[in-house]
Amino acid sequence: MTVVLKLGGSVVTDKDTPETVDDDAIDAAVDAISESGVENLVVVHGGGSFGHHHAANYGVSTTEGTDDAAGALAIHAAMKRLNDAVVSRLQSRDVPALPVHPLSVAARRDAEGDEVGETDGAGASLSLPLESTKTLLGEGFVPVLHGDVVAHAGRGVTVVSGDELVVRLAADLDADRVGLCSTVPGVYDENETVVDEIRSFADVESALGESESTDVTGGMAAKVRALLAMDAPAHVFGPDGIGPFLAGASPGTKIDGR
Amino acid sequence: MTVVLKLGGSVVTDKDTPETVDDDAIDAAVDAISESGVENLVVVHGGGSFGHHHAANYGVSTTEGTDDAAGALAIHAAMKRLNDAVVSRLQSRDVPALPVHPLSVAARRDAEGDEVGETDGAGASLSLPLESTKTLLGEGFVPVLHGDVVAHAGRGVTVVSGDELVVRLAADLDADRVGLCSTVPGVYDENETVVDEIRSFADVESALGESESTDVTGGMAAKVRALLAMDAPAHVFGPDGIGPFLAGASPGTKIDGR
Repeated sequence: MTVVLKLGGSVVTDKDTPETVDDDAIDAAVDAISESGVENLVVVHGGGSFGHHHAANYGVSTTEGTDDAAGALAIHAAMKRLNDAVVSRLQSRDVPALPVHPLSVAARRDAEGDEVGETDGAGASLSLPLESTKTLLGEGFVPVLHGDVVAHAGRGVTVVSGDELVVRLAADLDADRVGLCSTVPGVYDENETVVDEIRSFADVESALGESESTDVTGGMAAKVRALLAMDAPAHVFGPDGIGPFLAGASPGTKIDGR
Repeated sequence: MTVVLKLGGSVVTDKDTPETVDDDAIDAAVDAISESGVENLVVVHGGGSFGHHHAANYGVSTTEGTDDAAGALAIHAAMKRLNDAVVSRLQSRDVPALPVHPLSVAARRDAEGDEVGETDGAGASLSLPLESTKTLLGEGFVPVLHGDVVAHAGRGVTVVSGDELVVRLAADLDADRVGLCSTVPGVYDENETVVDEIRSFADVESALGESESTDVTGGMAAKVRALLAMDAPAHVFGPDGIGPFLAGASPGTKIDGR
């Protein structure tokens, strides 16, 4: 049973104050993970107030790159500081977490036939060899990845989002369950009520609108579409859902396009 | 023209004081790299006083592993602090350096038929996918790798040495030249005179003794043997040799088994 858990950047950081960990939120998340006793767990976290303002400063996104080494390092180093906070707190609760930094392992290449500026929302253009992550898992460790900059052929470095990593990890690790924790309790319908289950995009098209966006860090529509395409069920929930999700329940919205 | 340059841990740190950068030595090395203007450069550094005492504390070596996440993180985090010092100083001299952390990308597996405790001195058991390093190079960055812990199937994590990384990088990047800077000016003969050139192990067997050791972090004999097996010429020199090596000269000892 392999589980991928994404902790949104807005969950683990104070999004309004640069490079500030949300201590209470991160402690609650780490406690829930520790108490679950789940094995074969991979954690991914977003950037929140660590990654995003540096990325904005240097004009770097999933499609806009930079060849400025100082800019790339500023974004990467900030994400490593957040990752260190997450990994250290997990270890302090006896979760054998170890960092896996995407810049060290991943690379992008525009897919054949892509227009300049277009990336594949499902991450088809991302090379992410997982020998390290798989061997760490096999040895009982909990790899902790994060949104990051990665080398991108022809563009310097671009951003890889936590959500894109989740989709790739789920596929390449043949994950059984995927959980995405954000600050909202699930996917809302038109009345701002959490939808229990989404089996196809038509279920939520009226609430989420257009599904044509290919920006994987962007709106809920693209996220739902990417999660529907996975071979594992995904659960989208708020911070209170981490414990129930790891215990096998279905907090928030279940997204299952299989 | 792809060049791999190893900076020994004893060159960039004060080996006698835990976690202390040798400021003058590292500045001189970084100046020489900056002034050379070499393109397609990969830098690897050793552990010196950052990695080795943590590794010794936790009983971790290239063959002895640990499944203690705290121990693995202590070694890895110390190596990242040294790596950050090297990368930052290179950037401050306008070298577009970016970090590549082996724990994030590499994994080991005992080769078929290996005895427990035995590793292949040439790194045959090390999986080191280089998509990130190659794409960073192609985009004009200077990847900076380092000795580290890596996941090792059946053993938790073990140490990968800077020397082992150099041999693998040279092969997989099809490097044209390899330089290894340590605190000694080259390979000594019996009279402590630097040998100009080594074409086969027989050239230095009387000075270096047995060549049966498989400890890649160990003596000069194993190092010379590994370098002789490469498809690129290697140069072993002291700190003053960095500039001449990058300018195309042959400081210290040239090791060429082709």
